[in-house]
Amino acid sequence: MVKNVVLQGVDKEQNIYKEITPGGYGIAIKTKDILFSEQSDFQKVEIFDTDSDLGRVLTLDDLMMTTEGDEYHYHEMIVHIPMMHHKNPKTVLVIGGGDGGTVREVLKHDTVEKVVLCEIDGMVIDACKKYLPTISCELDNPKCEILVEDAIEYIKDKNDMFDVILIDSTDPMGPGEGLFTDEFYSNVKQSLKNGGIMVAQSESPFANKMEIKKMYEQLRRVFPIVSTYTSNIPTYPGGYWAWAFCSESVKPLSYWDERRGNDITRTCKIYNREYHNARFALPNYLKELVG
Amino acid sequence: MVKNVVLQGVDKEQNIYKEITPGGYGIAIKTKDILFSEQSDFQKVEIFDTDSDLGRVLTLDDLMMTTEGDEYHYHEMIVHIPMMHHKNPKTVLVIGGGDGGTVREVLKHDTVEKVVLCEIDGMVIDACKKYLPTISCELDNPKCEILVEDAIEYIKDKNDMFDVILIDSTDPMGPGEGLFTDEFYSNVKQSLKNGGIMVAQSESPFANKMEIKKMYEQLRRVFPIVSTYTSNIPTYPGGYWAWAFCSESVKPLSYWDERRGNDITRTCKIYNREYHNARFALPNYLKELVG
Repeated sequence: MVKNVVLQGVDKEQNIYKEITPGGYGIAIKTKDILFSEQSDFQKVEIFDTDSDLGRVLTLDDLMMTTEGDEYHYHEMIVHIPMMHHKNPKTVLVIGGGDGGTVREVLKHDTVEKVVLCEIDGMVIDACKKYLPTISCELDNPKCEILVEDAIEYIKDKNDMFDVILIDSTDPMGPGEGLFTDEFYSNVKQSLKNGGIMVAQSESPFANKMEIKKMYEQLRRVFPIVSTYTSNIPTYPGGYWAWAFCSESVKPLSYWDERRGNDITRTCKIYNREYHNARFALPNYLKELVG
Repeated sequence: MVKNVVLQGVDKEQNIYKEITPGGYGIAIKTKDILFSEQSDFQKVEIFDTDSDLGRVLTLDDLMMTTEGDEYHYHEMIVHIPMMHHKNPKTVLVIGGGDGGTVREVLKHDTVEKVVLCEIDGMVIDACKKYLPTISCELDNPKCEILVEDAIEYIKDKNDMFDVILIDSTDPMGPGEGLFTDEFYSNVKQSLKNGGIMVAQSESPFANKMEIKKMYEQLRRVFPIVSTYTSNIPTYPGGYWAWAFCSESVKPLSYWDERRGNDITRTCKIYNREYHNARFALPNYLKELVG
């Protein structure tokens, strides 16, 4: 009989990290030392080094969040697609995203005067500052205000405050669950300025089909404009990720700023204008899911 | 000490298949029964059932080739992108591709009069016919001619014979190695008709950077038009795959047939016109690699 097979997390006997989804497949990485492993008030926070091109890895409750080697695939996409749709993004709110990668990319836009990071779990921020410096490097930037609090409460009484809101959350189970509700999305919408844009990570089109379907139904009840874009994430299940692009007035591909866009492109490993334009073209099966 | 960890292939103690690349990361799938496992004259051919949404899996020398659950990601992309660039593809050559998925997609194009499958390993064809019927289902189509022989030899004396040639090979090591040479590509070019197009699978942009660089240098020595397109493949390392699009005269996105394209789209889980148009937009790091 098969016993004690680790399906999510580090198998210390084999020195292999696995994240096998409920669908029965996922990723595997050769591991070395565990650098940090503690239970916070919300989740298990772990950072380990790998015997791989991916470098160090952050997991929460044993689920892959980010790696030094491929984090730009996620962070460039969650940030630059919405930011480049906005004519003059000055104030940005990041919900979740305690590793700092999203803040780092936001601050590449020289229009930004202030980015607020609202992360419920201070342990994630502290561990990433210590062990993932290439990702967390801009968290001490004076333009970045860090709030260690529950975004669900924070957003309740904010009106007309942000140009762009980025929901860089965990999955819709565990601490991130309340970030996938109609009420939360309504409050986010209210806190956006005119011409504002919200982008939320919206799971794997291949591995999380039912979660996606439900999430887009919710978003469509709140926002008049709801669209989907996708890109490759090597270390997420299925290697493919979707983000929801939501706004009251801004349509996908309605604006791109030549000067800022070219500046941003020079700093990126993925992002460029053609790649930007191509992101909203979806496979048939995903078009059907997001409605 | 860690002993006997299976990094490529089925770990029978854990019931987990892993394919961990030289980069130290890759995929993992929960497995059930091994349905077929034999050594052919060329490679180890294995088909196993999985305890996953992926269904049955074909591996060659323990490397992932295709799964019932995600094969359309690969087969739709290797076939419909080039086929839809050709005004009237009548004769098609598939090199490798013994599982039959590429032939199945080619035969969706009602212009096709004949598709030749040139696969070196008859055991792959026979095993897939028996165990992967949803993939191999068109191998008995009267328009399909199967040649169990070495494509390197086959292609040497063919002139002006094919409208589209699809190189659906294994990686550039093992039996597929000779399919990644200047001489082979030159012979392929010679066997194309006027207006012909060759597409070759060209590995993972994220996991096989050096292989990609070398391959595109070779292709550029042979073909005046060499371009790259990419798409998501959930079960290949990095979740992302590239194909080389090569021709003497046909440029990317220079033609799309409305009638045939719409017919094809209705049969596909991925392919549609917007997705087609978006495929040639590459991330910065890949643009740099392919030159």
